Amino acid sequence: MSKVDLKMLSLQLGVSVSTVSKALRDSHEIGASTKAKVLKVAQELGYKPNPYASYMRHHKSKTIALIVPEINISYFLQVIEGAESIAREKDYHLLIYITHEDAEKEISIIKHLQNGRVDGIIMAISLHIDKYDYLKECISNDIPIVFFDRICNEIETVKITTDDTASAFIATEHLIQNGCKNIGYLSISSHLSIGIKRMDGYKDALNKYDIPFDESKVIHCVNQPDEDYNLIKALLSGSTKVDGIFSSVEKFALTTYRVCKELKIQIPEQLKVVCFSNILNADLFNPSLTTLSQPAFSVGSIAASALIKHLDKKRSTISNEHIVIKSQLIVRESTAVSNKD
Amino acid sequence: MSKVDLKMLSLQLGVSVSTVSKALRDSHEIGASTKAKVLKVAQELGYKPNPYASYMRHHKSKTIALIVPEINISYFLQVIEGAESIAREKDYHLLIYITHEDAEKEISIIKHLQNGRVDGIIMAISLHIDKYDYLKECISNDIPIVFFDRICNEIETVKITTDDTASAFIATEHLIQNGCKNIGYLSISSHLSIGIKRMDGYKDALNKYDIPFDESKVIHCVNQPDEDYNLIKALLSGSTKVDGIFSSVEKFALTTYRVCKELKIQIPEQLKVVCFSNILNADLFNPSLTTLSQPAFSVGSIAASALIKHLDKKRSTISNEHIVIKSQLIVRESTAVSNKD
Repeated sequence: MSKVDLKMLSLQLGVSVSTVSKALRDSHEIGASTKAKVLKVAQELGYKPNPYASYMRHHKSKTIALIVPEINISYFLQVIEGAESIAREKDYHLLIYITHEDAEKEISIIKHLQNGRVDGIIMAISLHIDKYDYLKECISNDIPIVFFDRICNEIETVKITTDDTASAFIATEHLIQNGCKNIGYLSISSHLSIGIKRMDGYKDALNKYDIPFDESKVIHCVNQPDEDYNLIKALLSGSTKVDGIFSSVEKFALTTYRVCKELKIQIPEQLKVVCFSNILNADLFNPSLTTLSQPAFSVGSIAASALIKHLDKKRSTISNEHIVIKSQLIVRESTAVSNKD
Repeated sequence: MSKVDLKMLSLQLGVSVSTVSKALRDSHEIGASTKAKVLKVAQELGYKPNPYASYMRHHKSKTIALIVPEINISYFLQVIEGAESIAREKDYHLLIYITHEDAEKEISIIKHLQNGRVDGIIMAISLHIDKYDYLKECISNDIPIVFFDRICNEIETVKITTDDTASAFIATEHLIQNGCKNIGYLSISSHLSIGIKRMDGYKDALNKYDIPFDESKVIHCVNQPDEDYNLIKALLSGSTKVDGIFSSVEKFALTTYRVCKELKIQIPEQLKVVCFSNILNADLFNPSLTTLSQPAFSVGSIAASALIKHLDKKRSTISNEHIVIKSQLIVRESTAVSNKD
């Protein structure tokens, strides 16, 4: 069966395409009985309006894009689930793009999306970006952007993050209170907002307990699995004494577990580990992993709600607000006080 | 800055909209010097062709949908990554839909996608579906569907699965060879293709080693976390002796780990566990988990390649082939022969 379109309805009904079109749009130019006839035949033949034709009339695609650096990280997954739930509810379509932390890829996706394919964008910026012209251009082309997690402070829009500094403080203080005196910090980035704020919280906690900040205990991970493995291994097997690790993101904590397995370092007896993570199976790890968990599903749903609310209102500028959602420290075995302490 | 469209270019150039449009499409009706002028101004003003206008001309949206039952399962995640990589390469957009194993949601998504929003669909069918009229209708409306993992045998199209029966046989035989005599099977579904075939492989292995099949050792999970927990707990704490578990999917194996923690059952000493799973952190579990891993990234990329190849060729029917990709048994601690055996 070929697709039922306006032309087919017009042939079937013996009226013009324009009449069919106006009747379906409930135009005042068409009489009630004609409208009823058109609707009846349209329903019988299973006519479905073409979304792109509707776009051509209203200049709305009812589609939003969600751009994430990686998909294999529980936090981003849960953000996608949250955004998807709202998109479905509000009858929007959700396009997913993965940058794989590649700045060029990210810039090309953003340029690509400015041709009307989407009405708006939700995104977390990838690692190696420090100039934001391509984002400003996108917004000036009437495609609003809502940021989450890795935000751009230079741009006025809705931004959603956790309380990065306060959470990092809580995690570091937890290590100190459980006996750690030499805490290493695994940094994801020294220029990304989350990198800076989480490091601030780490420093604040050291400061409160009069522990001097020691640059040699900070590992600037480069986001290459093998290299990061070697960087963490060098820290844990070198001359610097380390009895605790606070990792700014999940994956470096998992790498720490693997390094400890190789070096036969006992967690938590010899090294305590805590990290930002939404991993669902942290309780099954050996040992179970203490995490700072973000309400990532809410981050996704709040981002999508804010964007769609703006799109549906057609206001000229999106509101400029920074929404902060608290993380929760979930204490498990990896930071436990052991008998040997 | 308002968006640059054909009209704006026409005003700027002092030629008709039709001339601009034809020049941009490299029509033979327009002279070389005019074309050059139009292209130059279009470039200077940052003109981007409207994808929906292009759709209206060619009836192609260059968009495909990927429908998965859940996103929080490593297998589906890796399929998404594989499909996304091909979509990007072939300049297609990828819409993601999650059914959450809800049959009504799945049917409504499929109906919704038939209005021209996408050119084709890649999907794994959700659990509680046993009538396929809505899929046949979709295909008859010229939206081809490629199935993976959970396929529909009644429909002639490209289907991609692993060698479910052979893999289930290998996993069950592995348990038997490591000393298990009473192996429980955790079933995802008794009517889904993967449910039937994986159960067949389990039975074949029992049969080869003259172990009688015992229905009381088969748990038909219902995909409700709490209920499944109780079903597995009843099996492991009841009168039926069980020394091994083969789980048809990842999540029931993780539930088994949690039940064992509560009941203080030692893995692998008292119970060996193996399951189909692509979980990336199986090596960090307590104990590390033996898995049947599928090349899920390849499943996604092969599915997207097959669909896009068909769409680009515009052949009337998609080829009917069943592509089988082998799984790999990765032996870890959860099935190890222990001193107590």
